[in-house]
Amino acid sequence: MSYYPASILQLIDSIGKLPGVGAKTAERLALHLLKMPLAEVETFAQHIMHMRQNVRLCSRCFGLSDGPVCSVCADARRDKTRLCVVEKPGDMVSIEKAGAFRGHYHILMGALNPLGGVGPEKLKIAELSERIRQSSPREIILATSTTVEGEATAAYLAELLQTQFNGLSVTRIACGIPMGGDLKYVDEVTLKRAMEARAEYK
Amino acid sequence: MSYYPASILQLIDSIGKLPGVGAKTAERLALHLLKMPLAEVETFAQHIMHMRQNVRLCSRCFGLSDGPVCSVCADARRDKTRLCVVEKPGDMVSIEKAGAFRGHYHILMGALNPLGGVGPEKLKIAELSERIRQSSPREIILATSTTVEGEATAAYLAELLQTQFNGLSVTRIACGIPMGGDLKYVDEVTLKRAMEARAEYK
Repeated sequence: MSYYPASILQLIDSIGKLPGVGAKTAERLALHLLKMPLAEVETFAQHIMHMRQNVRLCSRCFGLSDGPVCSVCADARRDKTRLCVVEKPGDMVSIEKAGAFRGHYHILMGALNPLGGVGPEKLKIAELSERIRQSSPREIILATSTTVEGEATAAYLAELLQTQFNGLSVTRIACGIPMGGDLKYVDEVTLKRAMEARAEYK
Repeated sequence: MSYYPASILQLIDSIGKLPGVGAKTAERLALHLLKMPLAEVETFAQHIMHMRQNVRLCSRCFGLSDGPVCSVCADARRDKTRLCVVEKPGDMVSIEKAGAFRGHYHILMGALNPLGGVGPEKLKIAELSERIRQSSPREIILATSTTVEGEATAAYLAELLQTQFNGLSVTRIACGIPMGGDLKYVDEVTLKRAMEARAEYK
């Protein structure tokens, strides 16, 4: 049933393919784009293409970047002695948003998943070793997720890096009760880990 | 704070301006567009521009159209003797979706709103009279909204058209309890109208 002209239906269809956008929302957004001033719509379409043409992975850390090297890697004020290893570019953005870290990053582009066919050679692990060899950081912070894959990746990396680099400090981000979390709703594994990792009041 | 490269921020900003799209959703959609195959993203951006370049108002009924005349006006099988008057192109789509009408439409492009500076000359009322003069339909169905403005517009048109065209049947869509509506939640004005418009069981 075509209640709309073909070009509107085509756009509704395109918008509806985006994640979390249902048929009703797609229709509403398409009709909004129809009412928007032409110049704004042109800018919008250009921004989409501009992003796709410009964004690439940083040649050093594999984070999202507009140029050959990302803004974090290019920032001379950041602590070169600490390297935070994460799974995805989005994880780096999350840590940056939290303002929790002033060092450099290394994005693995995934996590080990033998059943899914992701072995160490599919991740940026050789590149990580090479970076450590060249820049000799003091500490490697493993900030992969606390999923099965993320934990396995962290364990694998910890063993590999401690074997490859004598005296390198390899740490893992803490696992525990999230802030504002009620103990009642925290799962047993987290609770056990939080208990084990308890620290002295300072 | 720029956690993302400039071209991503620009796109997040553009997406965030769409109605009903918050900052989180805008970020999610932008990152999705970043992961999508380039060809699909190009198609998406093209669909947006294609729609804006192609969609115009039908020269006869002022509905949304890809060509000079919309598909409803061009359809010879539709009942030329009935003309349904609505406020906005979207209202025509709603009635078409309901499959409730097989005649032709006329879109006013708004409703009378004297305080907002919308008088009869700002609406497609002269065009409506001209169309009736040329095609001599039997019935004009006033399907403007049941808002204050829509009701005023319908009342104005009813008087105007009955004066201009002797013997023309001018009707108004029924106002009453929506289907599935519990009387408890229906407002008093609607309930009063529904009572007044009660009909014999057939």
